This record gives sequence, C-alpha cells and structure tokens, in this order.
Amino acid sequence: MTTYRAIEVTGARRFALVDRELREPGPGHVRIRAEACGVCHTDVLAVEGLRADPSTPIVPGHEVVGVIDAVGPGVTHWRPGERVGVGFLGGQCGECDRCRRGDFVNCTDQPRTGTTVDGGYAEIVYARTSGLVRVPEGLTSTEAAPLLCAGLTTLQALRRIDARPGARVAIQGIGGLGHLALQYAARLGYRVVAVARGTEKEALARRLGADEYVDSSAQDVAAALQALGGADAIVATAANGASMSALVPGLAPRGVMVVVGAATDPIEIDTNDLIFGTRTVTGSLTGSSIDNEDTLAFSVRQGVRPMIEVLPLGEAARAYERMMAGAARFRLVLDLTA
Amino acid sequence: MTTYRAIEVTGARRFALVDRELREPGPGHVRIRAEACGVCHTDVLAVEGLRADPSTPIVPGHEVVGVIDAVGPGVTHWRPGERVGVGFLGGQCGECDRCRRGDFVNCTDQPRTGTTVDGGYAEIVYARTSGLVRVPEGLTSTEAAPLLCAGLTTLQALRRIDARPGARVAIQGIGGLGHLALQYAARLGYRVVAVARGTEKEALARRLGADEYVDSSAQDVAAALQALGGADAIVATAANGASMSALVPGLAPRGVMVVVGAATDPIEIDTNDLIFGTRTVTGSLTGSSIDNEDTLAFSVRQGVRPMIEVLPLGEAARAYERMMAGAARFRLVLDLTA
Amino acid sequence: MTTYRAIEVTGARRFALVDRELREPGPGHVRIRAEACGVCHTDVLAVEGLRADPSTPIVPGHEVVGVIDAVGPGVTHWRPGERVGVGFLGGQCGECDRCRRGDFVNCTDQPRTGTTVDGGYAEIVYARTSGLVRVPEGLTSTEAAPLLCAGLTTLQALRRIDARPGARVAIQGIGGLGHLALQYAARLGYRVVAVARGTEKEALARRLGADEYVDSSAQDVAAALQALGGADAIVATAANGASMSALVPGLAPRGVMVVVGAATDPIEIDTNDLIFGTRTVTGSLTGSSIDNEDTLAFSVRQGVRPMIEVLPLGEAARAYERMMAGAARFRLVLDLTA
Amino acid sequence: MTTYRAIEVTGARRFALVDRELREPGPGHVRIRAEACGVCHTDVLAVEGLRADPSTPIVPGHEVVGVIDAVGPGVTHWRPGERVGVGFLGGQCGECDRCRRGDFVNCTDQPRTGTTVDGGYAEIVYARTSGLVRVPEGLTSTEAAPLLCAGLTTLQALRRIDARPGARVAIQGIGGLGHLALQYAARLGYRVVAVARGTEKEALARRLGADEYVDSSAQDVAAALQALGGADAIVATAANGASMSALVPGLAPRGVMVVVGAATDPIEIDTNDLIFGTRTVTGSLTGSSIDNEDTLAFSVRQGVRPMIEVLPLGEAARAYERMMAGAARFRLVLDLTA
Repeated sequence: MTTYRAIEVTGARRFALVDRELREPGPGHVRIRAEACGVCHTDVLAVEGLRADPSTPIVPGHEVVGVIDAVGPGVTHWRPGERVGVGFLGGQCGECDRCRRGDFVNCTDQPRTGTTVDGGYAEIVYARTSGLVRVPEGLTSTEAAPLLCAGLTTLQALRRIDARPGARVAIQGIGGLGHLALQYAARLGYRVVAVARGTEKEALARRLGADEYVDSSAQDVAAALQALGGADAIVATAANGASMSALVPGLAPRGVMVVVGAATDPIEIDTNDLIFGTRTVTGSLTGSSIDNEDTLAFSVRQGVRPMIEVLPLGEAARAYERMMAGAARFRLVLDLTA
Repeated sequence: MTTYRAIEVTGARRFALVDRELREPGPGHVRIRAEACGVCHTDVLAVEGLRADPSTPIVPGHEVVGVIDAVGPGVTHWRPGERVGVGFLGGQCGECDRCRRGDFVNCTDQPRTGTTVDGGYAEIVYARTSGLVRVPEGLTSTEAAPLLCAGLTTLQALRRIDARPGARVAIQGIGGLGHLALQYAARLGYRVVAVARGTEKEALARRLGADEYVDSSAQDVAAALQALGGADAIVATAANGASMSALVPGLAPRGVMVVVGAATDPIEIDTNDLIFGTRTVTGSLTGSSIDNEDTLAFSVRQGVRPMIEVLPLGEAARAYERMMAGAARFRLVLDLTA
Repeated sequence: MTTYRAIEVTGARRFALVDRELREPGPGHVRIRAEACGVCHTDVLAVEGLRADPSTPIVPGHEVVGVIDAVGPGVTHWRPGERVGVGFLGGQCGECDRCRRGDFVNCTDQPRTGTTVDGGYAEIVYARTSGLVRVPEGLTSTEAAPLLCAGLTTLQALRRIDARPGARVAIQGIGGLGHLALQYAARLGYRVVAVARGTEKEALARRLGADEYVDSSAQDVAAALQALGGADAIVATAANGASMSALVPGLAPRGVMVVVGAATDPIEIDTNDLIFGTRTVTGSLTGSSIDNEDTLAFSVRQGVRPMIEVLPLGEAARAYERMMAGAARFRLVLDLTA
Repeated sequence: MTTYRAIEVTGARRFALVDRELREPGPGHVRIRAEACGVCHTDVLAVEGLRADPSTPIVPGHEVVGVIDAVGPGVTHWRPGERVGVGFLGGQCGECDRCRRGDFVNCTDQPRTGTTVDGGYAEIVYARTSGLVRVPEGLTSTEAAPLLCAGLTTLQALRRIDARPGARVAIQGIGGLGHLALQYAARLGYRVVAVARGTEKEALARRLGADEYVDSSAQDVAAALQALGGADAIVATAANGASMSALVPGLAPRGVMVVVGAATDPIEIDTNDLIFGTRTVTGSLTGSSIDNEDTLAFSVRQGVRPMIEVLPLGEAARAYERMMAGAARFRLVLDLTA
C-alpha cells in the first residue's frame, strides 16, 4: 500500500474522498492504520470551516482507533502492532508551562485532531505519541471510538464534581455524550436525573441508569430539579447556552454545573444563584491520554458501551448530516476497514 | 435604662429615629448593648424595602459590635460582659439538613440581621447565640464592625480559591470590600492585581497590597489580565454583572472567579471560556460565626484594618446615602455610644 | 409499660439482664422504643470496662434502631412514630468550636452511645436529637442496625479517598466492616481488592464485589498489591497496627490508607514510603447523623445489605463472645422485639 | 576550556578533586557552567555510598545554579546564556504513567541529581531539560541554590496542607529546611510555631516568623502544641522518626503532618490519634521544576532568603562535615566560581 483513502473537507461542508500518499511518521509521531473513527459534534470546526485557514483541506475526525504500523524517530515507548486511539487533544508538548504543571488539556502547543491537524476520517492517521491511548481488549474498535471523546468528556466531567456517595447528579441532554454520562453516573453510585426535551427518550434514559427523568420541554427544569431536592451536580452536554442558564437555579446548595457542550450563545447566571447557595459553574475539556485509558478501562470493567450506528468511510458526509440533525442513536462511527 | 434608640425604616428609605422598650432576650438569644454598626451595601434590602413586608418597620444593619448584657433561657456558652459581633447571617438553626452537613451559611432557617430581624442601627440588638462572634482585644468596636461582613466575605472568598503560593489574584472593585480584599490577598502571599475604574485609587491600592493595577475604564480588563499572565483567581466585589462578565476571559487556565457582589444584571459567560481553560465561576456568601472569629483573629495578627468614617446613630440616613453614592473611604460605621 | 429490660455491664464482662424504670426524655432528647441493636467490636470499651468508671453499670450498644415514642422539652423536628437510629456518636453539642466548624465527629461534648451513656442492648434508649438518624423504608430494623456504624464507617472512609473512577481500592479485613466496605467500594465503581488471612473468605469476597483477592497469611501483602499495580487507596478495618504497617508500602504513588480499626499496637511507617511516593495515612471516625442517613439511602438504592445473625436480647453475652471470637458471618444483631 | 574541576566521591566519604573532560550535552540535555551548589543532607546518599554501585565515582550535589553554555540535540526551549537551576529530581521522562498523570515527582524514570547522575559539586553539570529551573534576577546564585531543594521542599509541603487563613502551623526542626519553612509559613499568613531542641534558636526562630516556640528537649511537644490549641499542620523536617512520632498527638482535629525529612527509624502512630481527631500523616518529595520556579518567584517577592555559609569547591569535604554536624547556620553553599 502506497496510498490511502481519506475524506478531505475544504471551505464549508465540501467533502471529497481522495487518495493520499503514504509517508513516514515524523519525530515523536506514529503512523496508525485506522479501523474506526467516531463522528462528533466538534467536527463542525473542521466541516463548517471554523478554523484558521478553511481553504486548506483538512481530514476531520478525532475519535480514532487503529493499529500502529510505523513509528517515527525517537519513539521508544510505542511499537507497531499496538492498538491505540487518538482523541481531540492530539498530544501535549511537554514543554509549555501548562504541561510543566501537569495540566495537559490546557497545553498551549497541542494539535487538535481533525481540526488543526488531519484526523480520522481516513485509513491512515499520523499522531504525536503523547496523544496516544492504549485500547484494551474487550472493546471493538467501533465501540472504543466514541469513548475517546464522548466517553472521556463525560467521565472526566463527573470526576470534577466530587460529590458524596449517592448524591443527585443530573445529566442534561441525552445524545452522543449524555447517553454515556447516564451510564457512568450510575456506575459511580450517583442518583441520576436525566434531563431532555420530550418524553421519547425517557424509557431509554431509565434503562441506561436514570432514576428520574425531567422533560425540559414540559416543565421548568430548575423547579423540577428543586422538587427532587436539588441537583448536587449537573453535567450539561447540550450545546445551548440558554438551556444551560435555566439549569443553574436547579442546583442544590454547594452544587456544581460542569459545562462540556460548547455553545454559540452565552450562559446567563444570576449572581444571587451563585452567592446564595454557594453554587459553581465550571467547564471541562475532554481529558488527557491517560485519562482516556482510565475511561476505556472503566467502561470495559463496568460494561459501559456507546450505542452506535456504523457507516463506511465513503458515507462520511451522510454520517455528519445525521449527527447534526440529531438523528443518530446515539453515536455515528465510520468503519475504516469496510 | 428601659428604652433604647433605634433607626427604623419603613417602606423605601423612610428612616425614623425611635425609642423602643427594652425586653428580655428569648430562648437561645442574647441582648447586646451595641457599640458600633457598619453600613453595608446589602442594607439596600432593608432600606429600599426589598423584603417580605416593607410596611413593617425594620432596623437595618448587620455589622454589629457590642457587649452582651443579658442572656435568654437555655444560653450556656455566652455570658454578660463578653464583647461580641453579629454579621449578616444571624445564626444557624442547627436542625435543617444544611446545618446537619455543617454548611451553616446555607441554613434554611437562619435570620438575616437587619433584613428579616432587627439589626444594628440601634443601641440594643437581640441575637441568636449561634450567630455570635467573639471579638478579640486589639480591635476597637468601630474597627471590628466592617470586618464582620466586608472582611469576612472577602477573606472567605479568598479561602475558596486554593491557589498555589504566589498565584496571581485579582481584586475587582476597590471599595468597602475590595480595600480589605487587597490587604488579605497580600497577607496570604498572593501576587495581587487591583482592578478598578479610573486611576484615582491606584496609589492607595498599591499601598494596601496591590502589585499591579488595571484601570477598567481605560482598557479591556481581560486582555490586561492576560498580558500579566492571566489571573489564577478573581474576587469580584463590584455589584455589576456586566463588569463581572468582562473578567472571565482574564482568568488563567484552571482559574476561578469568586463572586461576592450581588448584582441586578446577570453574568454572561461564553461556554468556550469555561471549557477551553477549565475555568470556574462560583459564589461565596459571607461565612459562619466561627469563620468570622477566624477573620478577626487574622486581621489582628496581620495588621489588617478597614478604612472607616464614623458617624453617630442619628446620621444613619446620611451614612447610607454616602455609602450608596460611593463617597465613603471606604466603610461607614455608626458609633452607637456617641 | 412502666419498666423495660436492659443488659447492664459492670466491671469487665459482667452482664446482667435488669428491669429499669421508664422515664421521660430530657430537654433536646427523645425516647426510643428499640427494635434492634448491632454488636460491634467497639463494644469492648463498655464490656471490658475500658471507660471512666467501670463500677457504674452501663448498657452497651451503638447500632440502635427503633421508633420514637416520646420527645423531651424543646424538641421540634422529631415526633413520636418516626423510625430512627443512633450510632456511636450520640449527637453533637452544636456549641463547641469543632461543631461551629461543622466538624461534628470531633465535637468535644458528644456522648458516645453505649460507652459514656446507655446504649442499645435494651428495649428503651434515650438519645440526643442531634444524633438521630432517619431510617428509610426498604430496610428492616435488623438490617439497618449494622449499617449505622459498620456501614457508616466504611462508606465515609471510602468518601475520604477521592480517587479517580475505577481506581484500585483495597479493603483489608473481611469481617463486620470489611464485608460492607467491599460492597460499597464496588458500587462506587472502584476496582476492589480484598485482603484477608487465608483463602476461606475468597469466594464470598468476590461475590461481594472484590475483583482480586490477597491472602495476607500466604504472601507479602505490599508486594502483592504492588504486583497488581499498587493500591490507590486502602481501607484498613482490621484492628491490628502491625498488619496495617505492612500495607503502607502497597500503596501506589499518591495513595492513601484510611484507618478505621482502632488497634492497641501502633502503626509503624517508614518515612521513605511517605516521601518517595507522596503517600498518606489518615483516620476516619464513623460519621455524623446525616452522613448516616446518606449511608442508609445509598445502601437501599444500591442493594447493599449486611450479612447478619440475629439473637434475642437475653443472649447478648453470647452474641458479644461470638463477635469477639470472629465467629459471626458477619454482624450480630440483637432483636429487641423478640 | 577543555576540562573542568569536579569533586568525585567513591565508596563512603572518599572525596577527590579531579579534572574531567568537557563533552557535548546529549539529546534533550544541556551543559551548565555551574556557579553555586548547596550542600544538603540528602547528599548522604552519594557521600556515604548508599547507592547502587558505590565503587563508581559520583559527583554529589543537587542544588545547582549556573548558566547554560551548550544545548544538546532536540533542545528547543532553552538556550545558552540562560541562568538555570537543577534540584534533586533531575527531570521527568514524560512517558511513564506517573508523568502522564502529571505527577512528575513520582516519575519512574527520573535521574536523581548527585545520586544516580553526576551533580553540582563541579564546575560543569549536565542536565535533562525537563529538570531545569529558570532562576530570576533578584537572587544571587549562592542565594538561589539552597532554595532549589530546601526551599522547594518546605514551600511545597506547606502547599499540601490547605489550612484556613491564620491556621496554626508548626515547623519541627530549625535547620537548613526549617529556617526557610518558618519564613514561608509566616508569608502565607499562618500562625507559626517553631519546634526545636533547646532555647538557643528561639530568638532567631521568632525573627524568621515564628509566633511561638516549643523547646522539645524541655517539654512534651504534643502537650505543648495542644496547650496552644493544637497544630492544624506540622511540617516535620528533622530526619528522626521518633521525634516525628511524638508530634502526631499535637495535631488539632483534622490536622495534617507533612513529613519531608527521611529518617532511618520509623514513625510510630497510635491508630486512636488518627481515628479520634481525623488526623493525617503524609509525605512530600521536593517538587517539579515549575514548582521550583514558583518557589524562587515567591522567595524573591516575599523577601525570603536562606542563611548561608559559602565555601569554595575545594572545601566540599569540610562543607559536608559541617552540614552533617549541624554546625552550619543554616545552609552551606559551594561557590563554583571561586
């Protein structure tokens, strides 16, 4: 094989299936024969051209799983044949002050897979070793892919809350992220409240671990949460500032809302809700590569799996559209071996 | 003495100097011969009639210092002759679930001094023992009074941030709260940035402990903070949501903004500022009675004092007006012994 | 009924079944018609006469469940007919500095049920309201009793460790405390290692939630834990300092050992184990009354139950002996309604 | 210059002043023209031959300050002319799991300067870039040297305690570490208690920031600390397990002792002291390279300086002896430019 197939996007939503030349990985990098790549809402940055130079083609995709088939100069801890993943954060530099503080997600010199460097809508992916994630047996590559971003993001957000055993945790949004967050929250022993629009997803939400369900289209969410006793924590996955704003008064005293869904409109917070009740709003950005290994291990051991729809690489555009339309149940994955 | 003088407010801003009958303190309460009471912005709740029944007269004031002269039934740990203070939170109930969690500031059955029960614009104050604060020698009563709310609030806010030694901490607003926050932050070893409008307060801010000064009327505050390296923490004292909103992008990664000034307009936060940078916005509500004792002890030991203007009880209305106009340098205190 | 039966102990191990006069509860206290009381190792303090004045009879027992049948003066938040429990800590005073800091377990004026005040080896128990625990439906009284100390102690110890999702947590000692700790640790999503002497308990330990088992009589425990990757946390329940000492080098870097079993011999720690590895050894003392309500709620929701043997009040001495001999599987409970 | 002078130690205490050939730094390393190196108690590992192969000569010293004069292949963030330091931890590998968790002090593949690789008793030092510390103006090289280990260690230990403003912090041992710990603790706003043998150091301890002084040779230390109200935290710098054991009962409830002095005898802890009082004993190992930059910055800004005695390289053996005899006031530094 001297070429590989890849989906390139130029400008806004101009998808092209192209052949690319195979090359050797650079220093500190590996070449991965990709097997699966999830389709994530953050792919909008690449697909809609929301990046530095949209006229240069980019390969989207940051939930990549595959097998290393070549390592670059200076790579000592990874070898061909290992199954690995790469998420949104493409590997910390190790040199900037954030890295020196161990705060890798905030590294100031880190590629963003599928946005600033080519990602996983392709048969071959090149990645920095510091971004690599060892993928355990017990997960197929299509199962593992969505855990690398949707899973990681929600489990790390739950780790931020540090609530007492059995505390009430609300998961807002039952989609690609939320359907995993429900499972994780339940496995961590929390009392779980699912918050979503309509009643369509209620039965599923309960099956995934929700103890209670709030239909945000039919009632005041904050009032509903307070009627349950208040949420000790909320993981807000729906990419909508207005709907997040409505959640804050639903927090119990000392409660914390963790925002993981990037929205185009701001969150509005009444200072009284913060002060009277000692409430907190914070953000969480996926996690580091070892956080991702923790996520995969936790998922295997606890039987957490994403619900996925699988499509071949050639249908990447259709996969993206289904994701954007909220039609998928719940995560689309490109099978790169098909 | 069978009567005592008090300032009653009815409706909005209707002040009256009245004589009241002395009575015995109720169960679990003490009677305090008040010596000083600070004038705080939160007095607006009483004075502007922003409370359940503004037609019933209320005595404002929640920065009270005086001497116990009678104790009610069942009071065992406090005795006449002790100098004590009472702040905004008038004493936890000990029975509600928040109290049982040790979260006294969020007690659901706690009087708010000068708002739901009579406060300290008076020669005599009645108070629940759980709200009492022992006042150490080394502070006059007029010095101690503002520490019971303005001091407590800012020192507890600083305690929330848990930043590394020498971290950069910005204090927004150099007024009744801010001029104390600057002193506390410096005494805790932080690198302090004062943020205020204009240049008038710069020299003073530096004298009180600021290492750097940002004039928020002349420059983009967030950009100015980032130019310094980003704020690891911000204590936002100015009661203005819009100005707080402008601070959030000035936080360093992992930075936290602690809101202590209640505003009428909301804070608006871009979710990207929370997620990319793992930033946090939280609130802090004064503190408990023992937090207040900690505050007074810290102030004595570290030489932190409020800058005050002292007026007699009869000039309470004028004191309130000066406070509201931002004319005081920096805290008004009623001398109740004059 | 004007009298009730109680087991009194005088000196060391002198048990007597006596009739006592019923009296009214004092101020701030309730009278409980007891239904069940667990037998705990801490009962040694009473039974072996390890207390201030062993010549005065004491009623042992601090895992009491029953129904309030009278409330004393000033009691407003509790009423006859409620089913409640009382644990070892008999109710914080609310007045001492530890209470004012919300640190109720370290209250300096708190009765210790069954040790400094009469406990639950009796048909009637008197208790401070601040020590009362609401018992939910879904637990029988004999099931609930051991949770009030053995359950509380272990769940609170697990709460102290604050490890990442799926971290490796070792439970040392599979007895009254340990068999509950295993269940809790598993329900909190941890990877659980049971550590006990012999292989007899291995199958049971795995059924209760252990992923791995270390026979401490057959191998070096620390080496075995390190072979698994190191313990991120250890809950040490066996009342034996020497065996706890052996655990410390089995901690992973940043690991913490929480000691809950009081031993007569000291723990010995090599300072190098603390420094090189940043390890921590800490203690945990049961919990407050609301921590206990959290424990019961968590147990109900997660299906955690103690394994118990039930005996009538008259066989208290035999129950104590079985407990001391380690013969019980795993917790003895006196049925006070028999 | 093609050679440089260095002190080599072989076996136990066999010092030799030798000439070594200058060579180029390896990949990821720099060559430093050393200006100063502190003499630290941990130098015993090298000097007494307590290392893998004592027959191979080693250059002791891990408080090195100097100027980079050459950088090795792949070094991009450091350049000749920068003044830098190197401490005991010679630079994290970035690849092991502890590094990937950001826990650099527990890196499993990190050189230990002056113990596993040649250190700073020499005119030239080679170092991994991840171990490099930028040294600010405002400190001479001889002043900066002891801060790189004695300063770092104590400031990081204080950072571990997370006590409330004005909490009581005891510093045990007033020597190379303790005399810096006193200064840092005072600058962080703590109420500081110095604990040392005899009364000789009392006046100095108070000058450095101690509010109170306990003579451990004349009184029971724990009782003395409890008489003051109990220590909320203790930093134990004296390398003696028995004397640390005596401190634990002097902790206040929820108090924490941070051990930084490695001892040959164990700490003995009564489990009751841990459980009843919720006390904690933990260790702290110097810090990472950026922690060291924080330490230097804090020291400059707060006016913290080590008290030093300066000797030339040729008197390294004498310097070591004075240090071991406890004769130095308080830190010996080799001037490598002399």
